[in-house]
Amino acid sequence: MVKKRQILVIGHNTNGCTPEHEKIAYDVGMEIAKSASVLICGGLGGVMTAAAHGARDGGGLTIGIIPQNDPAMANEFCDVVIPTGMGLARDFLNALSADGVIIVGGGSGTLSETTAAYMYKKPMVAIRNMGGPVASFIDGFIDQRENVKIIGVDTPKEAVNKILELITA
Amino acid sequence: MVKKRQILVIGHNTNGCTPEHEKIAYDVGMEIAKSASVLICGGLGGVMTAAAHGARDGGGLTIGIIPQNDPAMANEFCDVVIPTGMGLARDFLNALSADGVIIVGGGSGTLSETTAAYMYKKPMVAIRNMGGPVASFIDGFIDQRENVKIIGVDTPKEAVNKILELITA
Amino acid sequence: MVKKRQILVIGHNTNGCTPEHEKIAYDVGMEIAKSASVLICGGLGGVMTAAAHGARDGGGLTIGIIPQNDPAMANEFCDVVIPTGMGLARDFLNALSADGVIIVGGGSGTLSETTAAYMYKKPMVAIRNMGGPVASFIDGFIDQRENVKIIGVDTPKEAVNKILELITA
Amino acid sequence: MVKKRQILVIGHNTNGCTPEHEKIAYDVGMEIAKSASVLICGGLGGVMTAAAHGARDGGGLTIGIIPQNDPAMANEFCDVVIPTGMGLARDFLNALSADGVIIVGGGSGTLSETTAAYMYKKPMVAIRNMGGPVASFIDGFIDQRENVKIIGVDTPKEAVNKILELITA
Repeated sequence: MVKKRQILVIGHNTNGCTPEHEKIAYDVGMEIAKSASVLICGGLGGVMTAAAHGARDGGGLTIGIIPQNDPAMANEFCDVVIPTGMGLARDFLNALSADGVIIVGGGSGTLSETTAAYMYKKPMVAIRNMGGPVASFIDGFIDQRENVKIIGVDTPKEAVNKILELITA
Repeated sequence: MVKKRQILVIGHNTNGCTPEHEKIAYDVGMEIAKSASVLICGGLGGVMTAAAHGARDGGGLTIGIIPQNDPAMANEFCDVVIPTGMGLARDFLNALSADGVIIVGGGSGTLSETTAAYMYKKPMVAIRNMGGPVASFIDGFIDQRENVKIIGVDTPKEAVNKILELITA
Repeated sequence: MVKKRQILVIGHNTNGCTPEHEKIAYDVGMEIAKSASVLICGGLGGVMTAAAHGARDGGGLTIGIIPQNDPAMANEFCDVVIPTGMGLARDFLNALSADGVIIVGGGSGTLSETTAAYMYKKPMVAIRNMGGPVASFIDGFIDQRENVKIIGVDTPKEAVNKILELITA
Repeated sequence: MVKKRQILVIGHNTNGCTPEHEKIAYDVGMEIAKSASVLICGGLGGVMTAAAHGARDGGGLTIGIIPQNDPAMANEFCDVVIPTGMGLARDFLNALSADGVIIVGGGSGTLSETTAAYMYKKPMVAIRNMGGPVASFIDGFIDQRENVKIIGVDTPKEAVNKILELITA
């Protein structure tokens, strides 16, 4: 295997996404592109769109893995679209496709992806103070198995640096 | 459609399951059988085994939806086994197969199923004081969408009565 | 594991299903019930409805595994519905849920399920002279791996007797 | 949506793959790259490896969608790996990820992918005289629905030209 490094960015869909979330997600995407990593995202709105936008502006490759059958449901910044046709269970494919995960706020969908990534022991970092149900797990573990700690960080640049460090370790 | 009522019971797998969790899960399964509902579970250990055991002892029908290809991986109390071959993404099938969900503690897998059920707006009740990451969401919502409140209850009998009420409503 | 014997019946959906297919599928379902096996089917129309109808009239248990999220999409003869929410990829779950498979004609969906069952090495019998793309594989193998031969039979009773023999072997 | 054009190549896994299949698959991959399309494949051996090899040598982007959880199971010519963790049901994701499909021989797995692509009405071309169970469907339809005809072609270049034409139409 000589595949490229794949970093998943998760967070609010359109519902609940503020301009601040979008700005941070855009910067995370940009930093991922600069690090020569591939951006993986859920291919829909909010943080997913902003991160893909940033990665494309940074010259990176963007992949959107979406719940629907129809690739036209993906946002316009996805270079490649994987239409899973399996509804929200695609959250597990996002997690499995990640060498590492960066979390920017998010609601129940993000919690689903975070939990999937935790069960499959993927390195994870989360931007602090972004709200949502994942917030209470930052700098801790989801359960008593202590599979992987969700590392809190404060900036997009720190997020990408930290996830690269965790992936390499 | 004239299918039977289907109630999903979720909670700790073998890892983290105490005799108290097992006792409560057994009683939940027994009450589900008495209500002439079908028990759906994840088909593996801990709360899944205990709930299926209780439902079988109560004369009910038990279904186990498992991550593996091989039905022999299911616990001995599942009358019917659905081997999904899709790993932990089967959590979504458990949630989708439920008319209502009863939560008995649980770790990350239970959180995954709870979040899936929340996204698909399934009625949910949770036994209080059972620990685990779902505990902090009891009597509240997982995110700002307020899809469905996870209703806290104190006993197996109350859990089944409440979920029947919510399913009927 | 002490689960019940699970027999999958596959064949034409509403499109392409003749009264003859329905009659045979009904009789296959009836024979499955008489053998104390559980009927598994894809939960939709045509052969799926007829087989579930026959199994229910024979006093058997019927399970429908459907592509949609909504259990109300299943036919009225399914006692338990597993709404997979994963579209036609649910064909693989049908195959994996089978201890043995009985084929009654069918189009591309049936070919998909037959191929999945072949890859997972499930015993299969097919009623002869029912048409459709599976017909050319009856009494032969799908590919050079020779995983499992699709045994041709002429009547519903013969189909169930043969599949029981193959499952037991 | 402004995603790139995505072409799926399917055919024999290691089992049954001859040097002739490999040569043709390599050339198909090369032509796909030259057409500025993304190669999608199942990420494993035989035709999948050869097509990805050709596409990489042609300077193209290659995506492998694999049955396993572990990206290391993919062949060395996949730039991006989507580890689905859902076993052979991933055949449906391959089909759904295709704007068009090119078939180079193949056994039961290829028949599964072809049937999935047929049900989802994807344009398909197949190299003639490559053997396997798909061969009997070339220049015809899989069932009476006549969803999409599998167009027979004789060379890799013709295959790519034809699929581009069908995708654009």
